[in-house]
Amino acid sequence: MPNTNRQLILRSRPKGLLAPDDLQLAEAPLPSLNDGQALARVKYLSIDPTMRIWMDTDSYLPAVAIGGVMRAFGFAEVVESRHKNFKKGDKVVGLTGLQDYALIDAADQRGSFQKVPPIPFISDTAFLGLLGINGLTAYFGMMEIGKPQKGETLVVSAAAGATGSIAGQVGKIHGCRVVGIAGGPEKCRWLLDDLGFDAAIDYKQPDWKDKFAAATPKGVDINFENVGGDIMQAVLDRMNLHGRVVLCGLISGYTKGDPALASFGMVLVKRLRVEGFIIIDYMDRYMEAATQLGKWKMFGKMKDRETIVEGLEKAHEAINMLFTGGNTGKLILKV
Amino acid sequence: MPNTNRQLILRSRPKGLLAPDDLQLAEAPLPSLNDGQALARVKYLSIDPTMRIWMDTDSYLPAVAIGGVMRAFGFAEVVESRHKNFKKGDKVVGLTGLQDYALIDAADQRGSFQKVPPIPFISDTAFLGLLGINGLTAYFGMMEIGKPQKGETLVVSAAAGATGSIAGQVGKIHGCRVVGIAGGPEKCRWLLDDLGFDAAIDYKQPDWKDKFAAATPKGVDINFENVGGDIMQAVLDRMNLHGRVVLCGLISGYTKGDPALASFGMVLVKRLRVEGFIIIDYMDRYMEAATQLGKWKMFGKMKDRETIVEGLEKAHEAINMLFTGGNTGKLILKV
Repeated sequence: MPNTNRQLILRSRPKGLLAPDDLQLAEAPLPSLNDGQALARVKYLSIDPTMRIWMDTDSYLPAVAIGGVMRAFGFAEVVESRHKNFKKGDKVVGLTGLQDYALIDAADQRGSFQKVPPIPFISDTAFLGLLGINGLTAYFGMMEIGKPQKGETLVVSAAAGATGSIAGQVGKIHGCRVVGIAGGPEKCRWLLDDLGFDAAIDYKQPDWKDKFAAATPKGVDINFENVGGDIMQAVLDRMNLHGRVVLCGLISGYTKGDPALASFGMVLVKRLRVEGFIIIDYMDRYMEAATQLGKWKMFGKMKDRETIVEGLEKAHEAINMLFTGGNTGKLILKV
Repeated sequence: MPNTNRQLILRSRPKGLLAPDDLQLAEAPLPSLNDGQALARVKYLSIDPTMRIWMDTDSYLPAVAIGGVMRAFGFAEVVESRHKNFKKGDKVVGLTGLQDYALIDAADQRGSFQKVPPIPFISDTAFLGLLGINGLTAYFGMMEIGKPQKGETLVVSAAAGATGSIAGQVGKIHGCRVVGIAGGPEKCRWLLDDLGFDAAIDYKQPDWKDKFAAATPKGVDINFENVGGDIMQAVLDRMNLHGRVVLCGLISGYTKGDPALASFGMVLVKRLRVEGFIIIDYMDRYMEAATQLGKWKMFGKMKDRETIVEGLEKAHEAINMLFTGGNTGKLILKV
């Protein structure tokens, strides 16, 4: 075992794509272990879009500090242990960081490592993809938010990516028509020929939106969204009433400071649920609400106020009042 | 009874605020009734932000046709009837349109009219506000999407409006800390003094965002959103993890062609559910997902592909590949 540990240190916050100097290779001494610690040799590192966010800004995790080892998820093998849960030879996954050796420390909750489960026929690298963050993301995003039903149309953006390719297959397994959006003919062929997607749209072709419309003749019920920006907008335009958007990534904006990131980025990072609401869906429950509101009003728990404008001919002025702040409470036109 | 019916006809689609000529007063003969029809005298008309959308574009209802009577919700009294469900003197609510007399027609489902329920101590106008579209919107939006819990913080924008003022009170009844955002001191006083809101923020004051932050020391759990734009952004910025946004209106954009309307407008009009999703919330269910994905993989129902880059020192190139479309499937750095 060497006595130094190669590490990639975050030197500057990237503008746009990463410049070579944003990450700097450095050598640190291998740590000596205290009780409750183990040392693991990193074998594979998962390269994920979220790393670009970690370099930039606080999000669901704090930004990586300038001068700190760049955060990354990795697969490693324990080479030495004074930690009761791990022994030499254990294969683990966790936030190893971009380095040769990762320290496993019982006191560090955030960077907690897990032994990989004993699942047959699974390669080491699959624990970073299909059985790693990407597989879990695709699985729970589809099952808990997308809730695929037989016969529904699922659209996946970045469909040839690690997460999108699995999300689409989860949709196929549940009987959805699955349309993938990806860049380039080779990726599209993979989606169609190997993964069994029903359609694959190459967003690098100028007429992709027409092809996308043709590929979604019954509209879109579920959008597993990894990209944001124009692509997300095109999918939203074709969504059916009461569709579900699994907002999983907004990769098109990460390197561009896309202003839409400000809003949808918050929805993503904070795992908000934003639900459009128009009352016509609830009109058959009118009596339920009216009875409750009427009771609250009678018992003084609910107050209302009206601004009344008189005369049918004043309608346009009345409508404008709504946008200029002219009314308080309910605005009514008395005929 | 007169034999003419004054109507406001949509003459042009407004740009920004309504111009006086966008709606033109015209007179039409009163219709003579066929079987299954009734005639109702319109007494009060509900003036709602959604009317501005109906003038402009197809949404959850088709745009009003140029030359057609402007659509509006109203309260009316039946004056003549050959309809089996209505008799002279019945008080009804429905899409009367901006006119003196509305035709109730059994064959017209969309414009269906309802008799107002027999709730004591309720004025006629309340059936357009507290017990009308606004009350129902506030009630179901809060109960079905907002799901207020005791001790949570609810923020309502356009809080002194017909819907917002009720939504905030529904929050108070359920034990929330309720913060309203409204324009001007008079509206803010009404929220605080009459409606019992915990704080009222006047967005016309230059330092309103600081005051808003101070009024939401524990962040925001529920946003009942009527406004959109900067105000919505300020609320999103303070939302807590797993918060809920009841996307009820985006009034700030209706007269301005706000580009954010393109996306959030779709979410609203189509009643989509957009849910941000990050896998760290599901890590304790790792084995459940890994077992299922592993089975699918074993039985050939799930395929994966990896793009492997070798060498720790290639990390920055690998990360950039994600944004330039360089990888298919899972991107892994082999150390």
